[in-house]
Amino acid sequence: MPHIATAQAHANLAFVKYWGKADATLNLPLNNSISMNLSEATTITTVEFDDSLPADQVLLHNSTVQQDQTQLTLPFGEAPQPAGAGFAQRVVNQLDRIRAVASIRTRARVTTANSFPSGAGIASSASGMAALTVAAAAALGLNLDQRTLSILARRGSGSACRSIPAGFVEWHAGTNNDDSYASQIATPEHWPLIDLAVVVSREPKKVPSSEGHQLALGSPFSQARLNTLPERTGNIRRAIHERDFETFGRETEAEALAMHTIAMTSAHVADGSWRSGVYYWLPDTLELLAAVQEWRADGLEVYFTLDAGPTVHLLCLADQASAVIDAVRTLETERDGRIWEIMRNEPAGAARVIG
Amino acid sequence: MPHIATAQAHANLAFVKYWGKADATLNLPLNNSISMNLSEATTITTVEFDDSLPADQVLLHNSTVQQDQTQLTLPFGEAPQPAGAGFAQRVVNQLDRIRAVASIRTRARVTTANSFPSGAGIASSASGMAALTVAAAAALGLNLDQRTLSILARRGSGSACRSIPAGFVEWHAGTNNDDSYASQIATPEHWPLIDLAVVVSREPKKVPSSEGHQLALGSPFSQARLNTLPERTGNIRRAIHERDFETFGRETEAEALAMHTIAMTSAHVADGSWRSGVYYWLPDTLELLAAVQEWRADGLEVYFTLDAGPTVHLLCLADQASAVIDAVRTLETERDGRIWEIMRNEPAGAARVIG
Repeated sequence: MPHIATAQAHANLAFVKYWGKADATLNLPLNNSISMNLSEATTITTVEFDDSLPADQVLLHNSTVQQDQTQLTLPFGEAPQPAGAGFAQRVVNQLDRIRAVASIRTRARVTTANSFPSGAGIASSASGMAALTVAAAAALGLNLDQRTLSILARRGSGSACRSIPAGFVEWHAGTNNDDSYASQIATPEHWPLIDLAVVVSREPKKVPSSEGHQLALGSPFSQARLNTLPERTGNIRRAIHERDFETFGRETEAEALAMHTIAMTSAHVADGSWRSGVYYWLPDTLELLAAVQEWRADGLEVYFTLDAGPTVHLLCLADQASAVIDAVRTLETERDGRIWEIMRNEPAGAARVIG
Repeated sequence: MPHIATAQAHANLAFVKYWGKADATLNLPLNNSISMNLSEATTITTVEFDDSLPADQVLLHNSTVQQDQTQLTLPFGEAPQPAGAGFAQRVVNQLDRIRAVASIRTRARVTTANSFPSGAGIASSASGMAALTVAAAAALGLNLDQRTLSILARRGSGSACRSIPAGFVEWHAGTNNDDSYASQIATPEHWPLIDLAVVVSREPKKVPSSEGHQLALGSPFSQARLNTLPERTGNIRRAIHERDFETFGRETEAEALAMHTIAMTSAHVADGSWRSGVYYWLPDTLELLAAVQEWRADGLEVYFTLDAGPTVHLLCLADQASAVIDAVRTLETERDGRIWEIMRNEPAGAARVIG
């Protein structure tokens, strides 16, 4: 039995969002969601089980590779550092779940690195938990199918289940631990969809997603969104199958706004004061959202989505990507010339063992 | 019988919004709304019926008075100009309604002036139609009660019915022409509430309110908002009665976000291209909304509301107004030093004949 394995997994971008949990312990979502794996946002994780270890060790490479570097090679230049207590505990909890499957108690050394900076508006928990799950299972010689890996990844971080299959993916909400998992809608090669992630700020967000999930049901609009989702999710799934970019874009953009309006109308008390909503948008975010509508009126085929953060994800087909980037650069010039970082993502493959 | 009269009316700021119509011809709203008349935003209108006129004349003073000038005196320095065709037609239609009450056909000369600039985020249609209605009725010697004036003003522009009574006002949605009108909740002297209207842009908005009303029912969240409104409206009415600023502020701020949620999720086609929502916010708007939450966390008692535009209305009690203005000025300094225009409104009186 091998004791060490390295896996790579991609972060994913949701077109139908995961927002609100039906079961916070099992990470069962309120609704099905649909996403695409992101080519330029990956986590590589090595897991080595070692009988001599008294406790799990979790090490993190803080340095990241360049966004145009598609082949990640370990080891990284700098030595990895011990991870923070919160992240380390989540890793240990996930190792415990995989050890339970293998019926062993051996401790492990986990080393992990991201190809993208934290705070860029792309969550690393999905790719991180997916890579950890696949690497740990491989290191223990477990021969788990994709569904089982997706279920295990989901326990570590809900949206991580969507980073297990390749390409375009749907997370079936399910009703219990065994029927809530993600499966493929279409391969990465099926459709040359491009996500241009415009990073408007690297400041950490004020309200973590985990808290947003809890607040979601407090909005008076939660149920109305859930009522519209079966039809919308069906439309987006069908639009991906049929490569119908206009339907895909309209439904995806409307869903992003629906999710953000839920967040804005989830009043709550934080830091001892009442807050009338979760604001993930920054002024630059709003400027880009307005620009997208103008660009579209000018004939550019581009739509947006947003996750729980200020990064604006511009969605277009591959043959329009350079025109969209030009439009962003023109907007920057018309403003103050400050340049936004843009990450260009294509549909990417499954979480997989790479070493 | 007098043939000429001059009336003054105040614009009003809604705490429960008028957004969506049950009957577009009669201007019957989907829901009750609550507002306050604004001391610094007034329209003065003179109506003179003249048998020698072949058609109604509508003249507009384009110059405005200073915002700290509380006593408006006619005539203004510059000569009034003929109003645009759209506005003139709305005035003629309203004169026809009042002529019908008096059973006459005499044409009139209407001269009108606003104390506040157009495009400052305070609608002039409410004060304009209220002043026109009161002046025309007085010029014709009609002795109409406040309810009848409110009903007539509503026909000219829905929210104008709220500018007829003094102070804090509730518009009863009603079910037909005769039971949809506004009445007083509390006098202007009842509560020293201040509205600091921060004007972040004078650009005309891209989607007029009339169009927004039509789009409102297209949002999947319309019904959910309407379901919450009876309780929320009751809470705001009671908070005004009891001078409970915290409840008033929370409910008012939440309602403003709910209304903007409806606007943002009212997808529609405009200028031949699909738009995923009505955006009334500008980047500066968002910066102020975020700042309000920070100021509140720092102990400043301030809440916001927004109408269908980018102007942010900061709500506070009179003894906090200078601290709130200081906070805005500090924010400006921390930015680029650019100064926002601030209009300071107190609760104001009824539409009334002044000459």
